[in-house]
Amino acid sequence: MSSSAEESIVRPSLRSFVTLSRDFALGTQTPSSFLEQCLQNIEAYESRVKAFVVFDKHRARARASEASQRWAKGEQLSSIDGMPVGIKDIIETVDMPTGMGSPLFTGAYSGRDSASVKALRSAGAIIVGKTVTTEFASTVPGPTRNPWDIERTPGGSSSGSAAAVAAGMLTAALGTQVVGSIIRPASFCGCVGFKPSIGAINRGGSHDFMSQSCQGALAASLADVWFVLSEIAVRAGGDPGHCGLIGPMDLPDERRPSTIAVLETPGWSEVSAGAREMLAESCYLIEKSGIKIIRRRDCLDVEQIEECIASAAVQTRKINAWESRWPLNIYRDLDSSKVSTSMLIKLEEAEAMSITQYRSALASRDAARVAYGKLKQQADLAITLSASGAAPQGMSTGNTAFSVPASYLGVPALSLPLFWDEQMPLGLQLMGFQDQDANLFGHAQHVLSSVFKRPELIGRVISDKSI
Amino acid sequence: MSSSAEESIVRPSLRSFVTLSRDFALGTQTPSSFLEQCLQNIEAYESRVKAFVVFDKHRARARASEASQRWAKGEQLSSIDGMPVGIKDIIETVDMPTGMGSPLFTGAYSGRDSASVKALRSAGAIIVGKTVTTEFASTVPGPTRNPWDIERTPGGSSSGSAAAVAAGMLTAALGTQVVGSIIRPASFCGCVGFKPSIGAINRGGSHDFMSQSCQGALAASLADVWFVLSEIAVRAGGDPGHCGLIGPMDLPDERRPSTIAVLETPGWSEVSAGAREMLAESCYLIEKSGIKIIRRRDCLDVEQIEECIASAAVQTRKINAWESRWPLNIYRDLDSSKVSTSMLIKLEEAEAMSITQYRSALASRDAARVAYGKLKQQADLAITLSASGAAPQGMSTGNTAFSVPASYLGVPALSLPLFWDEQMPLGLQLMGFQDQDANLFGHAQHVLSSVFKRPELIGRVISDKSI
Repeated sequence: MSSSAEESIVRPSLRSFVTLSRDFALGTQTPSSFLEQCLQNIEAYESRVKAFVVFDKHRARARASEASQRWAKGEQLSSIDGMPVGIKDIIETVDMPTGMGSPLFTGAYSGRDSASVKALRSAGAIIVGKTVTTEFASTVPGPTRNPWDIERTPGGSSSGSAAAVAAGMLTAALGTQVVGSIIRPASFCGCVGFKPSIGAINRGGSHDFMSQSCQGALAASLADVWFVLSEIAVRAGGDPGHCGLIGPMDLPDERRPSTIAVLETPGWSEVSAGAREMLAESCYLIEKSGIKIIRRRDCLDVEQIEECIASAAVQTRKINAWESRWPLNIYRDLDSSKVSTSMLIKLEEAEAMSITQYRSALASRDAARVAYGKLKQQADLAITLSASGAAPQGMSTGNTAFSVPASYLGVPALSLPLFWDEQMPLGLQLMGFQDQDANLFGHAQHVLSSVFKRPELIGRVISDKSI
Repeated sequence: MSSSAEESIVRPSLRSFVTLSRDFALGTQTPSSFLEQCLQNIEAYESRVKAFVVFDKHRARARASEASQRWAKGEQLSSIDGMPVGIKDIIETVDMPTGMGSPLFTGAYSGRDSASVKALRSAGAIIVGKTVTTEFASTVPGPTRNPWDIERTPGGSSSGSAAAVAAGMLTAALGTQVVGSIIRPASFCGCVGFKPSIGAINRGGSHDFMSQSCQGALAASLADVWFVLSEIAVRAGGDPGHCGLIGPMDLPDERRPSTIAVLETPGWSEVSAGAREMLAESCYLIEKSGIKIIRRRDCLDVEQIEECIASAAVQTRKINAWESRWPLNIYRDLDSSKVSTSMLIKLEEAEAMSITQYRSALASRDAARVAYGKLKQQADLAITLSASGAAPQGMSTGNTAFSVPASYLGVPALSLPLFWDEQMPLGLQLMGFQDQDANLFGHAQHVLSSVFKRPELIGRVISDKSI
């Protein structure tokens, strides 16, 4: 370890924005004063955390000043007008380059905003900067470090988004997930992470074209993440042909679940002792609160889901390889020396595959989705760990065994920063049912307030009407 | 009319490539000699037809020479090795600009090949040039004229692709369809047009992102169009998450249908007398050949389909508008003076829509797809006209009432150049069932050979093995 103890000192702090809407309206705080606190954290920590590819303080201050004036006049564009957000660097921005974590695209301007960025701007959100991603949102890590311990990975591929939110540099940041790229870094960095139902957020203008890919967000609280995504969905919709994120513009009402399924997932054999204890403790608390728990050993439907998701990583690898054949073959032809070995190996795998093998992997995934869908009759949601334990030391972005099932199943998943392992954050993962994202948020509120007594993670929202 | 009669003289001729594979193998013809005949037609007609945005004779000749050598050695890369093809100018090509029919993108290089173009190149096809599209594959026409009568439209949006194939400048050209952009120009120009099942051909790298959008091809014969698309599908697959075009690499075997449903479609009230007579005559021939015909008046399932597709144009307009909101808002912000009024109006409509209205249109489309799917129990395929009559004079790309149902329903559709109206070509449209594209080709062969006695439109294929 080359760094001294001092160099590791970052003070992670989640900075909710939407909880301050009353203050913004009353003028006791402004988006400008809020932004300054975020910029102070960037100033203090960015040299060690390295969450950003690029950020622009001047432009952010100008936008915050405009938002502050709108709030003062009661003319805010939305509940997130003036919120400082970051954009994962595979999502296009007209005023900043989109490097995709690849030397092939360093400094490259696409000339346009993605659908989601365009929507965020029209809702008044402040695009502070582009956050570090692994190469093409896949395996090879960028320079970002975990703000809780800079010897450790922040997770990936939404590495910079998670680290910036956890270090209080931003309230929220866009992420994407095809295997575990939102849930895992949210777990490792200790923020709220949300991967919506497949298709819920328009992926136009994002290097994010695979069939399991999904745009989502990492944020300081449940309310911040919901408001960011619902403001996008109402303006940009979901993927073409999809209904888009369904739910109210306000945080969905709290819902008490009557039954929760606990999933082991294929990650169970790799779980740390601390993480295992955390999940066991949670189950105890949940049952004590009067909610029924079902598991593979006492429910056939749960057992069948566990059997289906046992191959989630293997099938996902095949599906993603085939679907990445193009454009990886384009990148290899452009300059193979600027494509990582792991990407070239994935391309080789893809080129050795037949379309029949791909169809077989899709059929397995479809069967898993049908099996999971049946759970709706028995449980209100499923829970598991967000990761097998604390963020590992070194550069590897860590194990995805716990996060891949929700991507494979196409269902909404939340990571809530409720656990600790090795004095590092660890997430509890809540999984809902397709296009029932709002129900998942309702149940998550109940879990936070009544089971874990952590209402501050919900984010107290004062609506305009009540002011 | 400013042009003299002489200026209108083009001699349309379909130039099948795959029927010559035996000659290529024997050396009695070569891809180079074939290409020269295509280039002669370009030389003779392009100044009046204006099918191309750009073409490159020198590069095409170099590629043809390589293909000729491969055929001579028996080392051809595929059945389409050396086939001269065109690429609709909304589909990206690394060596030619992709202008998308918009002054915003004239001469713009994207820096990559689309998934389909990459696959075509690896199969040995010769990318001769980019073919004219309407603005963003929508309404505003380019300069292309109909090779049968240059006072008339070639149809759109795959205008240049249809005109170039019909004029014998190319064997095949890629097209795309979201409303009627393959079936309509194929009908007006008198070539074979095929819009596959939704998702059957990978749309990566094509400005073609709407949920009804589909990549397909226009070609000289049934075999040419099947070979082009199956060679793409086996290399690039379908859209992510879709099974891709299903079928053999060879032309699917002929299948005799036992029952055919005849659809009036919402276009029936606008049909020309000549077109109406053509369809009536076809029904007579079909029944005479021993195939049963069912219609709305004698079959409840057909009546329900007719009722569902009555609103296909209205719902499609809503769906496409909402899904075009982004990136049209980006283009307007870049330079609204370079965006057509019709696009700006579509964007206004989109921005006045709510996501709830979009979801309602999707629900209507889903219901129509379910209704059409039931027809499988009663009929092997459906037929109707490809257009309401001959290509109209002037610039308007014509009526889409007959072509929009297949896009709305997501099912494969073929236009076969079997009819005449006003001494212009007119297509018979065959519609199949989702992901059963191969069956549709089998039935189309029977219709061509046994009902209409036009085997030359099938394309006689001599496989390598039989040589």
